[in-house]
Amino acid sequence: MKKHNFSAGPCILPKEVLKEASQAILNFNNDNLSLIEISHRSKPFMDVMKKAIALVKELLEVPEGYSVLFLQGGASLEFLMVPFNLMKEGGKAAYTNTGAWAKKAITEAKSLGDTVVVGDSSDKNYNYIPKGYEIPNDVDYFHCTSNNTIYGTQMKNFPTAPTLMVCDMSSDIFSRTIEVSKFDLIYAGAQKNMGPAGTTLVIVKDEILGKTGRKIPTMLNYNTHISKGSMFNTPPVFAIYVSMLTLQWLKDFGGVEAIEKTNQEKADLLYSEIDRNPLFEGTANKEDRSNMNVCFLLTDSSKEEMFNKMWQEAGINGLKGHRSVGGYRASLYNALPNESVQILVNIMRKLEQN
Amino acid sequence: MKKHNFSAGPCILPKEVLKEASQAILNFNNDNLSLIEISHRSKPFMDVMKKAIALVKELLEVPEGYSVLFLQGGASLEFLMVPFNLMKEGGKAAYTNTGAWAKKAITEAKSLGDTVVVGDSSDKNYNYIPKGYEIPNDVDYFHCTSNNTIYGTQMKNFPTAPTLMVCDMSSDIFSRTIEVSKFDLIYAGAQKNMGPAGTTLVIVKDEILGKTGRKIPTMLNYNTHISKGSMFNTPPVFAIYVSMLTLQWLKDFGGVEAIEKTNQEKADLLYSEIDRNPLFEGTANKEDRSNMNVCFLLTDSSKEEMFNKMWQEAGINGLKGHRSVGGYRASLYNALPNESVQILVNIMRKLEQN
Repeated sequence: MKKHNFSAGPCILPKEVLKEASQAILNFNNDNLSLIEISHRSKPFMDVMKKAIALVKELLEVPEGYSVLFLQGGASLEFLMVPFNLMKEGGKAAYTNTGAWAKKAITEAKSLGDTVVVGDSSDKNYNYIPKGYEIPNDVDYFHCTSNNTIYGTQMKNFPTAPTLMVCDMSSDIFSRTIEVSKFDLIYAGAQKNMGPAGTTLVIVKDEILGKTGRKIPTMLNYNTHISKGSMFNTPPVFAIYVSMLTLQWLKDFGGVEAIEKTNQEKADLLYSEIDRNPLFEGTANKEDRSNMNVCFLLTDSSKEEMFNKMWQEAGINGLKGHRSVGGYRASLYNALPNESVQILVNIMRKLEQN
Repeated sequence: MKKHNFSAGPCILPKEVLKEASQAILNFNNDNLSLIEISHRSKPFMDVMKKAIALVKELLEVPEGYSVLFLQGGASLEFLMVPFNLMKEGGKAAYTNTGAWAKKAITEAKSLGDTVVVGDSSDKNYNYIPKGYEIPNDVDYFHCTSNNTIYGTQMKNFPTAPTLMVCDMSSDIFSRTIEVSKFDLIYAGAQKNMGPAGTTLVIVKDEILGKTGRKIPTMLNYNTHISKGSMFNTPPVFAIYVSMLTLQWLKDFGGVEAIEKTNQEKADLLYSEIDRNPLFEGTANKEDRSNMNVCFLLTDSSKEEMFNKMWQEAGINGLKGHRSVGGYRASLYNALPNESVQILVNIMRKLEQN
């Protein structure tokens, strides 16, 4: 039975990518060796790394002066690396608190120095994006989260910061056009729109590094990884390879601008139904609704059993909401076809008719 | 053409494992979803994690009171996590310096506190294992490297330490029986005998943690990962799955004792030829020779071109020595069949006869 995969992450990847990755596990590059049993310093893998980096630069139009890294440890390790690399000894940072992951980032920054929260939506269970806050002039950097997977909120605009601009884009990078030059450091766990779990993308402006006076442990220092081309130690070969394939798929699709259009159509289709259908209501503030993660509730809990049965029987997977919001969450990442969204909408209509 | 894969790591994995991993990328658990597009908190993946941990415990006979973790960042991140978790504020540690990776471990420890080197083979380009050194009574822990991939040396015995015993077993774990109870912390990058690059195994005695008085960043704290069963953040799903398959393969093979016997036979076969054949000489001290990485040189450099042609034509891969030792390195990891070693030995004999 065909599955419609609405998982929040790790999430759906393009079928063509899965097919090619599966083949590479058996025989990569026609060398009669598996991708995962060759040296990471062999030419075939060095070519993969080069191509992955080139695709990131091309798809996001990364300007000169930025380095692209593939690291390990997920966004969670970046929460620590960011203050280590950017917060001066005795310095200060400003963060927005827009969800569970933003909060974890704040915790790590606080462990290294003075950290102020300048925008905070925890008062309403993070169902909106704070706006109109002021970023102090005396901070070393400003940190925000572009999309909050759990709560289904997304920053539609980014503030102009009087300091370095850092953004966790784990759950919406490559889903919409961004102006990289407006940011000094972008990071993202791969496992949404880029690839499988196991690698973290970092895009960093070289000139901002090495200026804190802080002693940085080798593995936490971005300059370690820049100087070794993400090969200071053995990189996560498979995760980088599948990311490369997924970025190539995105390029063949027409790039970020083309996928942004499709993503908008998918989100519009589902949000329209949520707003139209009296059996459903969205949980996020309308103007802050995420195009990646659509969170909604049933207005009539007596329909729950029937609704769950209907979508499960249709081959829909991963629709359960996060425990801290409840209800349902439909994640509409790049690789999810319009058809899957249409099937979900049809079920919502059928439920209303019953 | 069939390949004989002597790569030093990432390295050969069992054919059955590659086949099953390739299939799981297309359709895992007969759910019509890929292993890499499902939630890490779904039952099918939780079962993988549980089974991987259980297999580690079973194969190494891990006693009660130890936790088994699958982390990210390779041994290189462990170089930092070990002193963060075990070195007291103002404390001290003792390390052996037996190669490039041991040296990197020492550098990270030094960045956190007083670090003494108690055994050092750098005077002879690390071609032997230091012995007879004394480990001071006043250190917080002792750290050693069980096998040195680059130089082909291996600790045949471990000293009795008057302190916590920490060992980097990246390149020989699961290749020979060890008594886990004699160690307090063992760590190993997966990409030799356990699986693909992208995850790090840690086996740690619970009671040694939380005693340094040091503030440990969340992601670097072993207790973070113990309390969340290696799921504090998204784990490297694919690398853990393939590790689980490889450990299951090892169990089916007969376990660590059975593979140790085979590994000994493979090493004996190759070292005998190196010692017998006047065209070759080993680089490591005989009593410290590694059963995993066999490093050797041609005694007559005029034969180099012919030898290289012969092994390349036989489908042998990954035989080039590390640049810091030169010559050749044949890595004989668990999944390498005896047949491959025999083919290499036959070529060495043919070269002599020519």
